[in-house]
Amino acid sequence: MFEVIGERINTSRKLVQAAVAERNAEYIIDDVKKQQAAGVSFIDVNAGARIGHEEEDMRWLLDTIQPVCDIPLALDSPDPAILEMAFSMVKQTPMINSISLEKDRLNSMMPFLEGKACKIIALCMDDSGMPESSQDILGRAKTLVTKLNNIGISTADIYVDPLVQPISTDSNKGTMVLDAVRAIKAQFPQVHITGGLSNISYGLPQRHIINRTFVSLMMDAGMDSAIMDPLDKKIMATIKTADMLLGHDPFCMAYLKGVRSGSIES
Amino acid sequence: MFEVIGERINTSRKLVQAAVAERNAEYIIDDVKKQQAAGVSFIDVNAGARIGHEEEDMRWLLDTIQPVCDIPLALDSPDPAILEMAFSMVKQTPMINSISLEKDRLNSMMPFLEGKACKIIALCMDDSGMPESSQDILGRAKTLVTKLNNIGISTADIYVDPLVQPISTDSNKGTMVLDAVRAIKAQFPQVHITGGLSNISYGLPQRHIINRTFVSLMMDAGMDSAIMDPLDKKIMATIKTADMLLGHDPFCMAYLKGVRSGSIES
Repeated sequence: MFEVIGERINTSRKLVQAAVAERNAEYIIDDVKKQQAAGVSFIDVNAGARIGHEEEDMRWLLDTIQPVCDIPLALDSPDPAILEMAFSMVKQTPMINSISLEKDRLNSMMPFLEGKACKIIALCMDDSGMPESSQDILGRAKTLVTKLNNIGISTADIYVDPLVQPISTDSNKGTMVLDAVRAIKAQFPQVHITGGLSNISYGLPQRHIINRTFVSLMMDAGMDSAIMDPLDKKIMATIKTADMLLGHDPFCMAYLKGVRSGSIES
Repeated sequence: MFEVIGERINTSRKLVQAAVAERNAEYIIDDVKKQQAAGVSFIDVNAGARIGHEEEDMRWLLDTIQPVCDIPLALDSPDPAILEMAFSMVKQTPMINSISLEKDRLNSMMPFLEGKACKIIALCMDDSGMPESSQDILGRAKTLVTKLNNIGISTADIYVDPLVQPISTDSNKGTMVLDAVRAIKAQFPQVHITGGLSNISYGLPQRHIINRTFVSLMMDAGMDSAIMDPLDKKIMATIKTADMLLGHDPFCMAYLKGVRSGSIES
């Protein structure tokens, strides 16, 4: 089944930032409970927006969230020192968000990751910028998997993010990423494919229908995870439906449960 | 771009049957105009439901529709005599709906089709019933294409219907048909794939989200046509969106036009 990485606990979101600044635990706990009820597999925690406060904010968020959260966290920071502190606090094997091929990020993250038991989001980004073809995405994914394998991270713990780009800039941006996902999964069947989806519709009107149509296409290609808002009911319903159509829902049980609970509506 | 075969002019639909019985041309013309405005590529015409009246009903429907219709028709009957009469009346190369591998249907349709300029819907059905695996569907499609090629119908004029089956009966019915469509398109890149979609959701609640999620998956696999109700706005919007995401809509022009006209909404 598809794994949703809930992206809501991020201090770049206004209400979360206010709750963190005021140490309003109730707000954070309520949000985490809602994400869990919606069926997320990981809760992303990003405390980076209040400059100079990331360490204390991350510590407070983990202290606040963990007592009410029985699913693993995605620790979201570019700073290995913050990640090291957070890693020591978590009770379940976390996901780390993220590494890329950008030299500075790569050089700071590799020593942190070496020898750690964790899952890792690996962005197909390098210092030249965004990838420009399916082959380019595949090449970057291969380099990331090889480098991570070499420091002991198994392919099944790697979540490659092929970096979805706006179709408004080029009509081939959809097929580019779909073809890349197929190629990556053909070469590394155990690797996970994740990422944000909403970039696909950037610059276009009626974005929601684009995003939810796109997620089903990406799932068909092999995407099995996304970083997204699990309280977006329509896209969650599409994901459950596509999971069923792609043969991942024996006897349509999860689909029928979703309908009964009111989370899936036509 | 995806081709919609509008299925509304069918005397098995109550209001159409009444209009045909009463020779209510206005009703039929209004429906045809709506289908054209919705962007169909073919208008299916089926006059089979009033037993004993098929010939006169088909003749009246064609006389009524053709003056207001500038797109080709799909002549929908199992009876070669009716088709022969209808074929002589149409002004544009029609689609014939349909042939299959069922012996009676095959033996009666092949002489009719030989030497005709037409498009043909070819159902992957034989006397043993519905196909039971992707390989089974592929095998039937191959047989149909070979038989039709042998009587002079080019592969590009064949619309294979792989026969969508309810996922409520078997969780693999989605991947079975998706895999089959990919295999058929790999072997016969010029063939079209068509069919009804709504069987996929038969027996399940909230069918619409299943149907529209499924159409995008089928389009990704290579389906480029469907027999459906073009006045179903939500599924038409999904088709336009998927066409864009699959690289068939340069500069997102058709999508943006759809949004401006109000036919695409999130």
